[in-house]
Amino acid sequence: MSQQGVTPQSEDFSRWYTDIVQKADLADYSPVRGCMIIKPYGYELWEGVKGGLDRRFKATGHKNAYFPLFIPESFLKKEAEHVEGFAPELAVVTIGGGKVLDEPLVVRPTSETIIGWAFQKWIQSHRDLPMLINQWANVVRWELRTRLFLRTMEFLWQEGHTAHATYDDAQVETMKMLGVYTDFARNDAAIPVIPGRKSNQERFAGALYSFSIEAMMRDGKALQSGTSHNLGQNFAKAFEIQFTDENNELQHCWTTSWGLSTRMVGAIVMTHGDDQGLRLPPKMAPIQVVIVPIFRNDGERGPVMETIQRLVPMLTDAGIRIHVDERETLSPGFKYNDWEMRGVPLRMEVGPKDVANNSVALARRDIPGKAGKQFVSQDGLVQTIRTLMTEIQANLLQQATDFRDSHLHEVTSSYEDFIAVIEGGEWALSWFCGHKPCEEKVQAATSAASRCFPLDQPHPGEKGKCIICGEEAEEMAYFAKSY
Amino acid sequence: MSQQGVTPQSEDFSRWYTDIVQKADLADYSPVRGCMIIKPYGYELWEGVKGGLDRRFKATGHKNAYFPLFIPESFLKKEAEHVEGFAPELAVVTIGGGKVLDEPLVVRPTSETIIGWAFQKWIQSHRDLPMLINQWANVVRWELRTRLFLRTMEFLWQEGHTAHATYDDAQVETMKMLGVYTDFARNDAAIPVIPGRKSNQERFAGALYSFSIEAMMRDGKALQSGTSHNLGQNFAKAFEIQFTDENNELQHCWTTSWGLSTRMVGAIVMTHGDDQGLRLPPKMAPIQVVIVPIFRNDGERGPVMETIQRLVPMLTDAGIRIHVDERETLSPGFKYNDWEMRGVPLRMEVGPKDVANNSVALARRDIPGKAGKQFVSQDGLVQTIRTLMTEIQANLLQQATDFRDSHLHEVTSSYEDFIAVIEGGEWALSWFCGHKPCEEKVQAATSAASRCFPLDQPHPGEKGKCIICGEEAEEMAYFAKSY
Repeated sequence: MSQQGVTPQSEDFSRWYTDIVQKADLADYSPVRGCMIIKPYGYELWEGVKGGLDRRFKATGHKNAYFPLFIPESFLKKEAEHVEGFAPELAVVTIGGGKVLDEPLVVRPTSETIIGWAFQKWIQSHRDLPMLINQWANVVRWELRTRLFLRTMEFLWQEGHTAHATYDDAQVETMKMLGVYTDFARNDAAIPVIPGRKSNQERFAGALYSFSIEAMMRDGKALQSGTSHNLGQNFAKAFEIQFTDENNELQHCWTTSWGLSTRMVGAIVMTHGDDQGLRLPPKMAPIQVVIVPIFRNDGERGPVMETIQRLVPMLTDAGIRIHVDERETLSPGFKYNDWEMRGVPLRMEVGPKDVANNSVALARRDIPGKAGKQFVSQDGLVQTIRTLMTEIQANLLQQATDFRDSHLHEVTSSYEDFIAVIEGGEWALSWFCGHKPCEEKVQAATSAASRCFPLDQPHPGEKGKCIICGEEAEEMAYFAKSY
Repeated sequence: MSQQGVTPQSEDFSRWYTDIVQKADLADYSPVRGCMIIKPYGYELWEGVKGGLDRRFKATGHKNAYFPLFIPESFLKKEAEHVEGFAPELAVVTIGGGKVLDEPLVVRPTSETIIGWAFQKWIQSHRDLPMLINQWANVVRWELRTRLFLRTMEFLWQEGHTAHATYDDAQVETMKMLGVYTDFARNDAAIPVIPGRKSNQERFAGALYSFSIEAMMRDGKALQSGTSHNLGQNFAKAFEIQFTDENNELQHCWTTSWGLSTRMVGAIVMTHGDDQGLRLPPKMAPIQVVIVPIFRNDGERGPVMETIQRLVPMLTDAGIRIHVDERETLSPGFKYNDWEMRGVPLRMEVGPKDVANNSVALARRDIPGKAGKQFVSQDGLVQTIRTLMTEIQANLLQQATDFRDSHLHEVTSSYEDFIAVIEGGEWALSWFCGHKPCEEKVQAATSAASRCFPLDQPHPGEKGKCIICGEEAEEMAYFAKSY
């Protein structure tokens, strides 16, 4: 155990994760099995995710709306695959206002059905298309084995739902939103996700094609961090979402849905964290710079706090998110550890010498010890901090990319080598026919499934032999253990 | 019926409201009885409410967090009044993952109990106080008689929950948040609400004292638009929320809770709307200025659209929320009506003459017809619009205040006069002893209850005789019919 009672990653990654989430005050268990409490610091991180995505959704023409939490049980049954996929995971309200309900209400596990009902009502003509809607909401899927942020019975997410006049339009939208997720993950969360298509076995219940962004955690496991589905006409036919086209003929719409959840908070923790705690990319950090005053007595305190009070509005006005740690009973050393645990990208120390020298000390969270610490002038401090923020953001992405790339292996030699890579906790990229028996064989052997056929194929235009069955395969897929 | 199929307010206010909410695309009925669908335009209005409040909550030191949707049934029973108040309104999950649950889970009607559980865990010492938490969430209260936004089975709201070391601290917080609601309602939503204390009969189930902001709708009815409760030690005792004070003695906390919901959207509609549709205060309007291009042929179209494309970035950069109505098959007149229905504060028309004269036409939503229309120079347009926005915002508040004041009546003459005022659809301000038999007598006679003892008493320091029983009364209270 480290000083702060965190299990080292190398000892037990799973316990490390749980320790960090609780000690960094991100989330807590609740008295309801499977449901978590998102604490203020964790919720601020989620607000950052929401902000980054919502801006991108609006910039691509989507509007937010809100649909009922409860869905009539009969709605789920209208799309055969959909109900089969979700039936085992449902929470069902059977009593309302003291009376047993005639038709039970399902707590939404996802909203394709009820939004499909609304689209059927709202869409008449090709002029109503595309219909581009997003919802920020809570959803419930009955889970027995839960983990904070990664898999909880209730979670927060956004679910986009769109309707289009043609298959092509729906496919363009599906890929556009996968691109939005990829862009957010890379550029805001500093997570070098791999976008790709899910295998037929792993697609969403009711979808024609599912796409996902797959992230590599620091234990080598994959975390599906966002999904985008081309639903074809499946839901349009189940809910009679129709429009009259330009020739005045009645057509079924083509729909999509796409979602990203509080799981992203877990992805940030497990992509960047180390044994000292969280490491947050500056763009996501609720606090970007924590200021720790250093003094031994009241005589030193005065000038130190005066300097800090002069610097604070300058930094705040520049849009830098700061926090001054004025807690009186705690030592600077304790505070350093505390803010390292919380992953604050930059620590600023201001002591009597700094007051005298017109300087401050800046310590980077991403470079431990003295190598990451420098004394800089108070003049031009905003620019200095901005430059460092950019560097830290880039460095975290680079470190995560290096880590990822060193654990990806293209395997074409043999099935045994392929299995060995997966069993070794790494990702194998191999030719894959995509068929169910092959996927099941790997799952039986390793408990790992295919992650995706990456959009960025290493040998475009070529074909190969499926690493599992030896039949012809048109694409390579990643296989890895996953959360 | 008016041109757009809206029932006039004077004919049937209730139908006017339903017409407006649907025709302005704010909300729609859903297939789940009592649950509504909030459409994009209505949700944007709610996002404005959220933004205005969230900023104020954070500025007063509150942090957002998130607690489970489901609450164990046993939790609600821990506070006797609380369970009595909410038991008839609960939606209950009895089946999860295909199995009947050992203990049913209640869908939260409000979160005092589960947050009380968390506070008990989080609070140890006086140094942990005050604990200032807010949650943005959906809640469910089983309602049979529902109305869009005003009373729905599921609604969106925020619920603040705080814990303090003393009664005084809790009372200061209760009044501070009532003040935040009042400030938001007046200055952002242009609703001149009356803040006051609820009678003992009308207080929140489990509270020591409840306070509310009461708004007057254009049919004279009152709408309770936000509440703030001093919960005393009731929930702290039920959930053992304790702290060690500075003398190292164990004490129960004093807690508060306060909430404002999507009902506020209904308040905005019914405070400002007229027979032509919504009238939105500029600070709340999702679209502040709608630009309608005017042209008869392609030759005119070019220069008009060029002018608009030159003005748009100028206005957008200045932070003005604009929309250009480029719909091709609709006449300008249709568009004018459409945007009046949606309550956009200012309409800008740009036609060939404006291009020639370097002018635009601006038409105010709050002043009908020619009186509200002016031709202004394109030079200095940002400043012109800003000034008009300020004027419109102030004018809507003034109109609502004048309306409110003309329907408030101080009644000290007789019980009959008092009842006559209430029956006439106005508000009576009278001395009231606050006792249950008196309140019940009025309710039996008029179906109206007391709204509040206003904080701003007209005769401070004086006493009078209760208008109902004639006993001594220390305060005056408003009585009115309400939603």
